[in-house]
Amino acid sequence: MKVLILGVDGYVGWPLALRLLSRGHEVFGADNFFTRKRVKEVSSDSVLPIRSFGERNRRLEESTGKWIDFYHGDVSDPEFIYDLLGDTEPDAIVHLAEQRSAPYSMLGLKQASETMQKNIISTMNLIYGVHDMVPDCHILKLGTMGEYGTPNLDIPEGFFEVEYNGRKDYLPFPRNAGSWYHWTKVHDSNNLMFANKVWGTRITDVMQGVVYGTRTTDITDPHKFSRFDIDEVWGTALNRFCAQAIAGLPITPYGKGGQSRGFLSLEDSITCLTLGLEKPPAKGEYRVFNQFDQHYSVNDLAEKVKEVYEKKFGKKATIKHVPNPRVEKEEHYYNPESRKLRGLGYSPKGDLQKDLVKIMQDVNDHRDRVMALKDVIMPRTVWGKSTGLPH
Amino acid sequence: MKVLILGVDGYVGWPLALRLLSRGHEVFGADNFFTRKRVKEVSSDSVLPIRSFGERNRRLEESTGKWIDFYHGDVSDPEFIYDLLGDTEPDAIVHLAEQRSAPYSMLGLKQASETMQKNIISTMNLIYGVHDMVPDCHILKLGTMGEYGTPNLDIPEGFFEVEYNGRKDYLPFPRNAGSWYHWTKVHDSNNLMFANKVWGTRITDVMQGVVYGTRTTDITDPHKFSRFDIDEVWGTALNRFCAQAIAGLPITPYGKGGQSRGFLSLEDSITCLTLGLEKPPAKGEYRVFNQFDQHYSVNDLAEKVKEVYEKKFGKKATIKHVPNPRVEKEEHYYNPESRKLRGLGYSPKGDLQKDLVKIMQDVNDHRDRVMALKDVIMPRTVWGKSTGLPH
Repeated sequence: MKVLILGVDGYVGWPLALRLLSRGHEVFGADNFFTRKRVKEVSSDSVLPIRSFGERNRRLEESTGKWIDFYHGDVSDPEFIYDLLGDTEPDAIVHLAEQRSAPYSMLGLKQASETMQKNIISTMNLIYGVHDMVPDCHILKLGTMGEYGTPNLDIPEGFFEVEYNGRKDYLPFPRNAGSWYHWTKVHDSNNLMFANKVWGTRITDVMQGVVYGTRTTDITDPHKFSRFDIDEVWGTALNRFCAQAIAGLPITPYGKGGQSRGFLSLEDSITCLTLGLEKPPAKGEYRVFNQFDQHYSVNDLAEKVKEVYEKKFGKKATIKHVPNPRVEKEEHYYNPESRKLRGLGYSPKGDLQKDLVKIMQDVNDHRDRVMALKDVIMPRTVWGKSTGLPH
Repeated sequence: MKVLILGVDGYVGWPLALRLLSRGHEVFGADNFFTRKRVKEVSSDSVLPIRSFGERNRRLEESTGKWIDFYHGDVSDPEFIYDLLGDTEPDAIVHLAEQRSAPYSMLGLKQASETMQKNIISTMNLIYGVHDMVPDCHILKLGTMGEYGTPNLDIPEGFFEVEYNGRKDYLPFPRNAGSWYHWTKVHDSNNLMFANKVWGTRITDVMQGVVYGTRTTDITDPHKFSRFDIDEVWGTALNRFCAQAIAGLPITPYGKGGQSRGFLSLEDSITCLTLGLEKPPAKGEYRVFNQFDQHYSVNDLAEKVKEVYEKKFGKKATIKHVPNPRVEKEEHYYNPESRKLRGLGYSPKGDLQKDLVKIMQDVNDHRDRVMALKDVIMPRTVWGKSTGLPH
């Protein structure tokens, strides 16, 4: 299969490329290095050192004889995406090329508008590009479990039977996101659903949980590492907690810490995405997957990180609740459904305890880099603050 | 009250300004003449002749002693909106400054992306501008009944009680729009709901039906006319049908004509918007109104236009169903609720029979202009056609 990964230089994009190559697929990739640039802007960096994309790709070829056919460009530029599709004629496209940080999107109007524009326009370009150039191609789009928010209900996979005033219909489940970033993913989902309605485009819309981890079965040595962010803007909770423990800083759940989310290991994420590609939707189908392994509260994660750290390194770790910079419920019901991927054969390999040992090992091997980033781990981006007119 | 109308040169904006002035409010207005320009691009024009904005405003002052404080600019430019809010310090803002044509948004990627960008970014600018400059100001935003689509259920006003797997919550009603334009209104509604969640911004989100008519109680002579579009891109169904009858063309419902929508007269639209402004939401409130008088099928409208035309002009009119250029259900259940505005005192004045007589009179007075536009009335914009890469 010919797969084009948009955002191939990212945390998920790179290990997905490794997996697809090792399974014999032909892999094309595109990136504009947006995340690298924006991470630098908040004085941060990947804790696991990663080389330039060209260098990574060259070393990949040296060690495996396989490489990614790479195109440098911005998916929010329609000309770039049309040229790319014309040149590569993929069977499937994985769209990971969006601004992916909730705190970044909440920094102010400039970042909020940039997130709206980049994310929505990139998906619009893809929708039209696929229709015009490769209409049978499968679009696998990365959304987030955060699109649903935290309703006081079970969360179905995209659609559900609604009853109102005695009548019934099968409708999209109401979305209720918690940041501008998360809302762009809702807007994308709606736009993709409509593209499917008008053109019958094959689409898999993945509501993914929070991904953690440094390794997959393909990441066997350091030159294959994916990026690993631990700062408050670009790092996710579990990765950040591990870095805090390693740095001897308190582990800091936001607010009461009863916020629950779906989580999955990087290995499981790559497995699920590969499964979605290898078992594509039927012609004319729009399908939604809730993609996660387990759900945990932030307090659960903090406790687990503390426990594993203390056992492995024989030192004390502390947990310190800090004021929640976000606007979100800190105690709530949470029970999302996730049956479709399991129905296709997904059997989770994640084991939080064991995965945490591996993460902490890898992060501790770069403890000097963690220490250099100590000042950007604690939350500064407050939901609802505004920085005024963009300059 | 100081009211700022964004999109004051438009079909609804202008008569709303007249009404607010006559009720003693201070009216500020902004426009970038987007609709005038884009209507010209499809070789069309308003059937009722309208002067330049400056000229209209000058004649308004001559005849009433009142005028609109006008600012020329683009709401999708953040600097313009911040300057405007700083200068005018309004108590309420009516946001009508969006690309408002469904067919226009379906012309191709260029127009689809332009609609996404202009509409979403203008609302984002407004959200941040109000928070930063006039946080207590009420935003009254024009959405559309089209945000809901045509579910096989009654349509509540924005929110409803959901039951799923035995648990209950009160959630946004699922949206299911029918064009890129309609989807931008859904995206705006979601973004406004989130702004209210984070900042408590006062918001009225109006799901308006299709507006028809040439007159309000304030439009007493021709120099006060609002624009009136009849072409397939910018004209709405009922206005277009009247023009077809006057021009001696067949009245052309799309497809089977069983498509039902909520409708209201221009007079009722202005009354409702004024009511929403004069009875604003509480501090911290986000409210959704379904704003329409009656719902009709396209066939109902065609029949009524035919009947009134034949009675008034003593000539035959014909109805001819044409292939539906849109992707939509042509026969469906339709029963939207509309109680909140009535609860605030809205008592519909629209009388379709009488209103049609007035519309046809006014349009017939400019029959030469209708005849000049004969070629742009019939549908050419097909949902799902693509024009390829934008130039």
